[in-house]
Amino acid sequence: MAREITAFSNPLVKRMRNLRDKRHRREEGLFLAEGLRILTEAREAGKLPQYLFFAKDSASHPLTRALVAETEAAGGEAIETNADILSKLSGKDNPGAVVGVYPEFTVDLSDLNRDSAGIWLVAERLRDPGNLGTILRTADAVGAGGLILVDDCVDPFSVEAVRASMGALFTVPVARARWEEFRDWLRSGPGQLVGLSLDTDHHYRAPDYPAPTFLLTGNEAQGMPEHMAAECDVLVKMPMLGKADSLNAAVATAVMAYQVLDRQQR
Amino acid sequence: MAREITAFSNPLVKRMRNLRDKRHRREEGLFLAEGLRILTEAREAGKLPQYLFFAKDSASHPLTRALVAETEAAGGEAIETNADILSKLSGKDNPGAVVGVYPEFTVDLSDLNRDSAGIWLVAERLRDPGNLGTILRTADAVGAGGLILVDDCVDPFSVEAVRASMGALFTVPVARARWEEFRDWLRSGPGQLVGLSLDTDHHYRAPDYPAPTFLLTGNEAQGMPEHMAAECDVLVKMPMLGKADSLNAAVATAVMAYQVLDRQQR
Repeated sequence: MAREITAFSNPLVKRMRNLRDKRHRREEGLFLAEGLRILTEAREAGKLPQYLFFAKDSASHPLTRALVAETEAAGGEAIETNADILSKLSGKDNPGAVVGVYPEFTVDLSDLNRDSAGIWLVAERLRDPGNLGTILRTADAVGAGGLILVDDCVDPFSVEAVRASMGALFTVPVARARWEEFRDWLRSGPGQLVGLSLDTDHHYRAPDYPAPTFLLTGNEAQGMPEHMAAECDVLVKMPMLGKADSLNAAVATAVMAYQVLDRQQR
Repeated sequence: MAREITAFSNPLVKRMRNLRDKRHRREEGLFLAEGLRILTEAREAGKLPQYLFFAKDSASHPLTRALVAETEAAGGEAIETNADILSKLSGKDNPGAVVGVYPEFTVDLSDLNRDSAGIWLVAERLRDPGNLGTILRTADAVGAGGLILVDDCVDPFSVEAVRASMGALFTVPVARARWEEFRDWLRSGPGQLVGLSLDTDHHYRAPDYPAPTFLLTGNEAQGMPEHMAAECDVLVKMPMLGKADSLNAAVATAVMAYQVLDRQQR
């Protein structure tokens, strides 16, 4: 039976609201996700929240009912609440019908099976949570084996990243590693590392991109450092016909990922 | 000679800060852009600000000096200020060295020369300013003739859209039209309309995409309405191998745009 919380001053609401802050996420090992669509993706991927906040007026929605039932069956707590509290939790003026609080999960490099997928995405020092979430969403779409976050990337469990991922955070394995760890792991098995560069004439549609291909995306402002570019087995460039010399990081990653997918599907 | 403003209460600062709000942009016909990189893109595209705010400590930077000199020569006003006021204007904690205030500019459909480019981007009811700016950035990169915003799209002159465009707002023509106007204009000359759809088996790499191709991107949450899909000459789908059935709108637009570019460059 779901308990009801309608007071802003409720200690659990205060604690969960703090999860929008990275420091509190680290301390609690929990993060927030919102919206029926994303929480349903999570449920279908076998991920259930520790706390499920749902709006009273959405309680009869079949997807809400399924979330409540399965959350409680798995030992989590379902909490009936109102739009104001959902708004406070999610930070959105128009919150979805549900907010879930989940334990954080990442995988170790050693847990990744590189033979399980033809494409792997790798991002180094990514700064923008929207880009990170969007890259996860693309990873899901191209069937990537996972996303490997190298060095100091923005937190994949931030509200903005979770939102932009549209649920892919729950379905795509995410690993975090220092560059040296990643490089050593990469070189311990088959696979080529592919990077975008301005300093090459190698057109991105030319290579074959055999599986597994690891696509490295550099920092939004600076691109990848020289020593990472030097480690790449293949450097390619995309046509840039306008005034600018770069694309948005999530866009460049997606165009490359679909090129690799097309090559591997031929 | 640049005047100096260091008081938050200065009426011009207050007025310009209000430009972060859409209603004020409409009333004034002005918008904000920030950062040396974006303002320099604008300058190189022949667009100079009506007001240029620059940090005292960046006054000696060659790009700042060029902006100040050309702004004043063109009849605009250069205003020396501090980081606090730049932060107030841009809404960013770490503002760039410059903020420019520009007159809004869009073009009419009738001013677009469809023979001037092989690719044109069209977006309908786009909601996210970051997506709009990112699509402009992609439009620049693929050499698109322009971006046509159909029906009620988010404002391309919002601070977020300008920022995400990385200057492309100043180099890529932007037109706004109702769907019926756009359709009539489109059918008054050569060109095919291409849309993404879930209801087709036509792989996006199959068609030839002759110039000019108009790529239609639908609303982020709902995709394009049935009557727009029915108007498309070509409907294609992209492989979606994961749990989700759609990509981020800016990502999907970019993957399609690069596919069209590749076909047209063969």
